[in-house]
Amino acid sequence: MRSFDEYKELVESKLTSYLPECGEYASLLRDSMAYSLDVGGKRLRPVLLLAACDAAGGNVENALPYACAIEFIHTYSLIHDDLPAMDDDDMRRGKPSNHRVYGEAMAILAGDGLLNSAAELISEQALALEGDADSLFAHARAAHEIMKRAGASGMIAGQTADVTSEDKEATADLVRFIENHKTADLITAPVRAGMMLAKADAAMLEDFTTYANRLGVAFQILDDILDVEGDDKLLGKTLGKDADQGKCSYVNVHGMEAAKSELHRLTDEAKTAISKYENSKFFAELAESLERRDH
Amino acid sequence: MRSFDEYKELVESKLTSYLPECGEYASLLRDSMAYSLDVGGKRLRPVLLLAACDAAGGNVENALPYACAIEFIHTYSLIHDDLPAMDDDDMRRGKPSNHRVYGEAMAILAGDGLLNSAAELISEQALALEGDADSLFAHARAAHEIMKRAGASGMIAGQTADVTSEDKEATADLVRFIENHKTADLITAPVRAGMMLAKADAAMLEDFTTYANRLGVAFQILDDILDVEGDDKLLGKTLGKDADQGKCSYVNVHGMEAAKSELHRLTDEAKTAISKYENSKFFAELAESLERRDH
Repeated sequence: MRSFDEYKELVESKLTSYLPECGEYASLLRDSMAYSLDVGGKRLRPVLLLAACDAAGGNVENALPYACAIEFIHTYSLIHDDLPAMDDDDMRRGKPSNHRVYGEAMAILAGDGLLNSAAELISEQALALEGDADSLFAHARAAHEIMKRAGASGMIAGQTADVTSEDKEATADLVRFIENHKTADLITAPVRAGMMLAKADAAMLEDFTTYANRLGVAFQILDDILDVEGDDKLLGKTLGKDADQGKCSYVNVHGMEAAKSELHRLTDEAKTAISKYENSKFFAELAESLERRDH
Repeated sequence: MRSFDEYKELVESKLTSYLPECGEYASLLRDSMAYSLDVGGKRLRPVLLLAACDAAGGNVENALPYACAIEFIHTYSLIHDDLPAMDDDDMRRGKPSNHRVYGEAMAILAGDGLLNSAAELISEQALALEGDADSLFAHARAAHEIMKRAGASGMIAGQTADVTSEDKEATADLVRFIENHKTADLITAPVRAGMMLAKADAAMLEDFTTYANRLGVAFQILDDILDVEGDDKLLGKTLGKDADQGKCSYVNVHGMEAAKSELHRLTDEAKTAISKYENSKFFAELAESLERRDH
């Protein structure tokens, strides 16, 4: 296993190189996609994919395109989130948001382009596996895992529930739906996809799925806590997202003390789920550093 | 080989059933995606995928999810195209456009959802192919073909070139780039993907690629011709797209007579490319009916 920063460096060394060449007449598309990828961020999701693959004995280099594809998906969701019709955010990670630099039309196309590039990059990996049924099937499972959790029954469903939550009663059920889908699905997808690429056994896959789900929900609750406590600096650094003004948060439904207690409980549950594995230290430390807010 | 309408009925019998369930809290997402799929249209792209697969001796039923995925991609591109920041169209195929019914935020999410659902639906097909290296590889080629031509070096590059063409000199090169990528790539992708699923040989794949490209470029030039001649009824019926006001069209650069002559030349080239194949009649008639504008 390598360190968080080593995985992160690996991701950042390749990230924009995996974007398609868009041609002379569409160079603005590539520029706008690369702009949002280059703004930075924790790279939590791609790091989790590489670390999960590594922990299960897989090949980290081969997993790198899938890791970068997850970051493409995360980044497209932020670009579209920031649009005037959505959260209408002018800034993202201390820099002008994509549509403030390239205009709304290009920001819509850059988001579409990044989501499509993720699917394209993933699908491309199978072309080198002709004749290898086992690796082709491992690829197929990872590809489906990522697209399903990113999609209309996953992250986009969570986004929809969040965007439309103002019209609904804020219930514990709705809050958990948003946490699970808007946030946890795109934390769970890279962990499971990394494990699938490494051909991990079903028991290990299940334990790490529990870890990833609890980490993801904790991540969203921390976001809600920081939103209320207003630590903008930490918030920007930790989550790379602007404060969520949503009425439908754990804090708003259950209260601040309950939220902090739930954050602690989820972190413990995440750590416990994987404690028996040889490489659990990396993942336990990551969960703890998230709870301490120093990541 | 079946008739155009038989393939079309097959597509329409399954199209919305392939959408993911979005859950109680995101039912609006599914509604908005289904609304735009149900508005109708020629279904040219999915029909081409099924017909190409059929012509090469493949299994049409197995190809149906891929065909529907292509229609998801076409539909998402229309939803995003119609947004106020893009073409700002209130109507699509005689009905209110997606954002006029569901609002801009939901239209953005519905477009994202349809694109993601296409990749998800395609990737799901491989899960039934464990152990079958040949079919897994045929799937992988078809999946990559669709995502590549739909993407940032394909359709989205063409869209970008079109959207930004007002700032550029309208040259023959730029016009051909837009025709090839904005339009022909999403005609070529289903033809090639259908052939790949049927494991067609390289020569047949190449000939049908020529057919599909010429058909796609002809399709865009016809759009430009109808745009100027203002046959709104035919335009709506044929292309399912609103008139393109773009300065960068074949008609504007080369003139109306040259455009009509090029349309004729391309149709001939399309037909010639595949004339030696047993099932060429279906494809030749489709190209002719397009030129006669009665499709």
